[in-house]
Amino acid sequence: MKAVVTVMPKAGVLDPQGRAIGRALSNLGFTGVGEVRAGKVIEVMLDETDAAAALATAEAMAAKLLANPVIESFAVEVVP
Amino acid sequence: MKAVVTVMPKAGVLDPQGRAIGRALSNLGFTGVGEVRAGKVIEVMLDETDAAAALATAEAMAAKLLANPVIESFAVEVVP
Repeated sequence: MKAVVTVMPKAGVLDPQGRAIGRALSNLGFTGVGEVRAGKVIEVMLDETDAAAALATAEAMAAKLLANPVIESFAVEVVP
Repeated sequence: MKAVVTVMPKAGVLDPQGRAIGRALSNLGFTGVGEVRAGKVIEVMLDETDAAAALATAEAMAAKLLANPVIESFAVEVVP
């Protein structure tokens, strides 16, 4: 199964990368651009065939390594 | 509306960040880990209220700035 972990900076945490992207979009002529947040997405192929077990494994991976729980929140999705 | 742009390295493109994450997961004791791919997700708040127009704008943003079309593919999603 494939686990997709999306990691975003928590609300209120300064996101300089997102801010830089927002400024670049304005400079390129895009109007009506509000807040921009930049995060990561990590796709992990797992040998596990049980969806619930794969989800639990991916959540443990996210909590231990992929996300920094102090400044980032994560969401995990499992696709066959 | 909020546009969510997901940018992933194209299949066949070397992804050293993904490979490093895969190795780190194995070192942490996770077993059954196959290929790992690391990408970016960018959330852009748009003043635009029409979903089709917001999608077109976000696709233009992705093609012009957010993704490098030589080595990356992108997917755009619009949520209210």
